[in-house]
Amino acid sequence: MKAKFITLEGTEGTGKSTNLEYIKNHIEAAGIDLLVTREPGGTPLAEQLRELLLAPREENVDATAELLMIFAARAQHLNALIRPALEAGTWVLSDRFTDATYAYQGAGRGLSREVILQLENLVQGSLRPDLTFVLDIDVEQGLARARERADLDRFEQEQISFFEAVRQGYHERVAAAPERYCVIDAGQSLDKVQADLGKALAHWLQGQ
Amino acid sequence: MKAKFITLEGTEGTGKSTNLEYIKNHIEAAGIDLLVTREPGGTPLAEQLRELLLAPREENVDATAELLMIFAARAQHLNALIRPALEAGTWVLSDRFTDATYAYQGAGRGLSREVILQLENLVQGSLRPDLTFVLDIDVEQGLARARERADLDRFEQEQISFFEAVRQGYHERVAAAPERYCVIDAGQSLDKVQADLGKALAHWLQGQ
Repeated sequence: MKAKFITLEGTEGTGKSTNLEYIKNHIEAAGIDLLVTREPGGTPLAEQLRELLLAPREENVDATAELLMIFAARAQHLNALIRPALEAGTWVLSDRFTDATYAYQGAGRGLSREVILQLENLVQGSLRPDLTFVLDIDVEQGLARARERADLDRFEQEQISFFEAVRQGYHERVAAAPERYCVIDAGQSLDKVQADLGKALAHWLQGQ
Repeated sequence: MKAKFITLEGTEGTGKSTNLEYIKNHIEAAGIDLLVTREPGGTPLAEQLRELLLAPREENVDATAELLMIFAARAQHLNALIRPALEAGTWVLSDRFTDATYAYQGAGRGLSREVILQLENLVQGSLRPDLTFVLDIDVEQGLARARERADLDRFEQEQISFFEAVRQGYHERVAAAPERYCVIDAGQSLDKVQADLGKALAHWLQGQ
């Protein structure tokens, strides 16, 4: 079987880290060789770009500059890590990928989806995730959870209207290609979220 | 008169810093308000991107990642510094700009000129320099000069064939739109280089 590329998406406070771990364990329990990574990041250079992107700063960051930094990190991540892993038969699970760019920079910042698509094609060629989990939660509920943590990064400091647009952006992505996505209600208890994740994943793995 | 945007280009060892200073003094002596800046760089974020770009590293840097980082820095530089200056009536003199991208990433790295053009249009809209000086020198002569300096950055560590392609890339740019460029023979003595620069600049300023 060809190695699969799975991504996990969601707004703030959806329990992404915990659920990433759950998905990882589930896949590995099936005897599959798996690389877990994240965006922006995944290689030393891409992680340095992540730091620049997330750091709160005095300077107002131009939205197009932000978009190009994200795709720069993605180009590096893909060519240095993700593609070699997939070619070697290792599955890849990434904490965020290009759907996040459509949601945060497209819907959130209001950048052109057409420009994002051009960059996606430039950087990825035809590569797309095989399966994407979207952890979905009411924005206020999610932010209340996320803000229990200490230091907020440059994105976490945005207003509620930004995150409402981001959530809407994820919904648009799902609506446009529902066969690739699995939306999970992350407003439930963690047990229920993981029961849903486990069931969906088992079903999907059976179909592969 | 509308504020002008002037750029200075050249491969390694053309005396770019010294000649930038000379051009600056010449323009300011004409009573013109001038901002001097550089690429990649010019704002705190763009200077951080410059550091990531120039740092020698173990990791092999993907050419598309490099290209996108350069345009990210440019988007920030343009929107935070260059456009506001020009709109306020201040002339801008930049040590390198998009011609360097066509030369280094296009001709040097072999990336598609069409892709560079798309990014140029995305980031700059219709903004192009009004005048570009290209300091031109025999590659071996230039490298011999440049390598008298201590630490070489990631670009300066490239092979001669890379710099030959870069020089050729500048020549292609000039050939495609000669009215915007002024090529200076930087293989001459500094006095002669600056005499040529001064004469060309005085002539151009008269025409504005």
